[in-house]
Amino acid sequence: MHHSRILCGPRARLLTLLCIPGVLCGAPAALAAPASPETVAVQLRDAAIAGHDIAYTWVSELTTRFGPRPAGSANEQAAAEWAAARLKALGFENVHIETFPITAWVRGSESAQLVAPISQPLVAAALGESPPTPPGGIEGDVVLFGTFNELKAAAPGSLSGKIAMVTQHMVRAQDGAGYSAAVAARTDGPQAAAERGAIAFLLRSVGTDSHRIAHTGTTRYVDGRVPLPSFALSAPDGDQFERLAALGQTIRVRLVSGASYRADAHSQNVIADVRGGERPQEIVLLGAHLDSWDQGTGAIDDGTGTAIITAAAKLIRDLPHRPRRTVRVVLFGSEEVAQPAPPGGAFGGHAYVTTHQAELANHVLTGESDLGTDDIYAVGLPKAAFSGAFADTVMRVLTPIGVLRAEHPPEDAGSDVGPSVEAGVPAFLLNQDAMRYFDIHHTPDDTLDKVDRTQLDQNVAAWAALVWLAADSAVDFHSHEAAAPHP
Amino acid sequence: MHHSRILCGPRARLLTLLCIPGVLCGAPAALAAPASPETVAVQLRDAAIAGHDIAYTWVSELTTRFGPRPAGSANEQAAAEWAAARLKALGFENVHIETFPITAWVRGSESAQLVAPISQPLVAAALGESPPTPPGGIEGDVVLFGTFNELKAAAPGSLSGKIAMVTQHMVRAQDGAGYSAAVAARTDGPQAAAERGAIAFLLRSVGTDSHRIAHTGTTRYVDGRVPLPSFALSAPDGDQFERLAALGQTIRVRLVSGASYRADAHSQNVIADVRGGERPQEIVLLGAHLDSWDQGTGAIDDGTGTAIITAAAKLIRDLPHRPRRTVRVVLFGSEEVAQPAPPGGAFGGHAYVTTHQAELANHVLTGESDLGTDDIYAVGLPKAAFSGAFADTVMRVLTPIGVLRAEHPPEDAGSDVGPSVEAGVPAFLLNQDAMRYFDIHHTPDDTLDKVDRTQLDQNVAAWAALVWLAADSAVDFHSHEAAAPHP
Repeated sequence: MHHSRILCGPRARLLTLLCIPGVLCGAPAALAAPASPETVAVQLRDAAIAGHDIAYTWVSELTTRFGPRPAGSANEQAAAEWAAARLKALGFENVHIETFPITAWVRGSESAQLVAPISQPLVAAALGESPPTPPGGIEGDVVLFGTFNELKAAAPGSLSGKIAMVTQHMVRAQDGAGYSAAVAARTDGPQAAAERGAIAFLLRSVGTDSHRIAHTGTTRYVDGRVPLPSFALSAPDGDQFERLAALGQTIRVRLVSGASYRADAHSQNVIADVRGGERPQEIVLLGAHLDSWDQGTGAIDDGTGTAIITAAAKLIRDLPHRPRRTVRVVLFGSEEVAQPAPPGGAFGGHAYVTTHQAELANHVLTGESDLGTDDIYAVGLPKAAFSGAFADTVMRVLTPIGVLRAEHPPEDAGSDVGPSVEAGVPAFLLNQDAMRYFDIHHTPDDTLDKVDRTQLDQNVAAWAALVWLAADSAVDFHSHEAAAPHP
Repeated sequence: MHHSRILCGPRARLLTLLCIPGVLCGAPAALAAPASPETVAVQLRDAAIAGHDIAYTWVSELTTRFGPRPAGSANEQAAAEWAAARLKALGFENVHIETFPITAWVRGSESAQLVAPISQPLVAAALGESPPTPPGGIEGDVVLFGTFNELKAAAPGSLSGKIAMVTQHMVRAQDGAGYSAAVAARTDGPQAAAERGAIAFLLRSVGTDSHRIAHTGTTRYVDGRVPLPSFALSAPDGDQFERLAALGQTIRVRLVSGASYRADAHSQNVIADVRGGERPQEIVLLGAHLDSWDQGTGAIDDGTGTAIITAAAKLIRDLPHRPRRTVRVVLFGSEEVAQPAPPGGAFGGHAYVTTHQAELANHVLTGESDLGTDDIYAVGLPKAAFSGAFADTVMRVLTPIGVLRAEHPPEDAGSDVGPSVEAGVPAFLLNQDAMRYFDIHHTPDDTLDKVDRTQLDQNVAAWAALVWLAADSAVDFHSHEAAAPHP
């Protein structure tokens, strides 16, 4: 403590930041001359790793005070207002809320029951955006398909009066590739089932757990609506159906959903800047989403994402000098019900692009945190900076906290910043370990107890360091040549 | 295969048993003379460890064909009829069903909702036997108590119009001791809350997991009824309530339960014997229960228990000579709603004692398998045989599969055989590792995927070896002296 005061007492904010109890203060060299961007990045990284309370406090308060935050809900709006107030209190600039209209989907009372060959309550969740059943429910025999391709191979009319179910199992993979491989059955299954005459669609949850917890998620509009009442069943229920089928039993279920829509709803994006010192018009855009599915409290999807980018930007904001470029945090609304086009197509990522069209050419780089709380293990830089001096600097800073260089520039940066990327903004990706994420994703089980504080801090460290390096540089991430890092 | 046939072809059933594909057959010495009881116990043990399919097939079919088997349900009765037919097919003797009347409790449509300070769906399960709410539910402010003792310390009338909640956390412990310490809040909480004026009772689930899954369980009748509508909340919901309270928020909930009772229901015990060769009137009683809670499929509670004792007895039944004493398997009904006395007090363990009163003095030993599927790590013999030659033989056979000698004779052998033990039947205990059991116990998550086949086989091995040694002995487990094992 005393040592800290001697070294750090008379110095500015950077050194305050570095003087974390129990951690050594910056080396005396830091006192002698302005620190290089790389040195500052290392200091930001180490401050976060040492335990920066902002991220955990943020996600704890967000999930406790507002619980589930489905798009268009009062909880989502209240969370946005709280977030804006908190961002102002943290010292961000240009803090404001941008509202946009949506049609909100509201889960109703719902149930699923095996009625033959035995009576058994099932654990099910209506898929997002899917229409209600009649009040008495829908009852029918279930036809199982081991994969979505098998359903698509069924003849038109062959499912007339039946309930189609895809029992495909999702593969656990570090990079989340199992999700991409499985999710088409959820987004496009209702349409494929409807085209073959089915009266409802069931899906073994797109998830990697084996608990009686169903994974919801949005489905695709076709001609302005999701074609069928559609439900995810928990993985053990899917297993049970497969075993019953193997015993030669006919499986009959009753499904009830009281889902509804509110056409006059709205959602909102929350914007907050750390204004750049030299090139404030140039923006490094950090995204995450404030909305969540309705059964959990959106802790890892995406409370932690909002916490990570906010905490990283706050560390940068608290430095003694501003980065050259502006760092912008956007906490998006209505991500979970993202549809490729209206109706139902209004979501935060689109709304941002529409509102900020004039600025987009000055968005120099963007990235999104939306894969939970577990460690970042790789960094992918845009093609223009994928190799070269800037990338080498990034790797020197991030390698010590367990981050590899990705094999390729990112092909996809996530839903929230997706429309910005489509509009030409270069994207980076900080790949998180997704081995555990899809156990919890889109379930009632997405709650604060799943957040690993040590791994959360590692995320903040990587974001703070990388964003700082990009924002304090003059690198043109748009170009096809790797530029030299600043200075 | 050829080797097996040369060694084993002309021999009787014992050797057939030992000739498991991929496993060495019995040593040639076994051909020369009748095997000692200890040698047979080792052979039974090793046959089970090598993978005896009966246990897993049993629990898979039981849970798949009959799903949840709440006491008094059609599923429970159908499972009993199936079990009796299967036991006959496996070659057991004296197979029959003994029916007894019960009042069945039936879960209805139920829900729990946080209505202030925010709206959030809660994961709750009505506690077994607890009465319904009015159709529109009960709404009230929640008063939290960190422990059951704190609730009991509250003044009479102090909870008038409120909903009382005990948020006590259960401790994870290998021997399940955390359950004993926590469960009083569930059994006696409704009464304590009612005495202080509460309108409903809530409990943080008695369980060790951190999932959005509620642990039900039975509650105590007071003057012929459970005093209040009572619910368990999932652990993360309990955490959320504690955090909201720490933020100074008033917690208000709406609870709905459509539970009902059927006074004219019945349950049943299934009996099956391996008749003893020398002292058939002397009975070693093995117990487990066929009924289950209603939200899962009763895989580990207690499908695996019924599988373990059935498979162990089947191994003994298939030996080339009978044990001296009779081995009796009882698959009890209506264990989960066991109450200390009628009304509501009729359950399988009591019914067995009532029906078999005349035989009880000849029940030489009893044990129960009702703690899931994980490894047995200790064996407790009754005081009369706790040390001495019989115990030493048992330990020589069980030590190689990871079983310690318990520090004390068992004080409690379980609910099913409890009334028999109270009537004087000596009890043994094969202690299972309960570290994982209470993650799943009494939840919708009690499904087949939780069964570990390797550990299930270890259970069968320990049961087969110990039961064989006891049944083929002349040890008087009632005496206060350890007798010598047979021969």
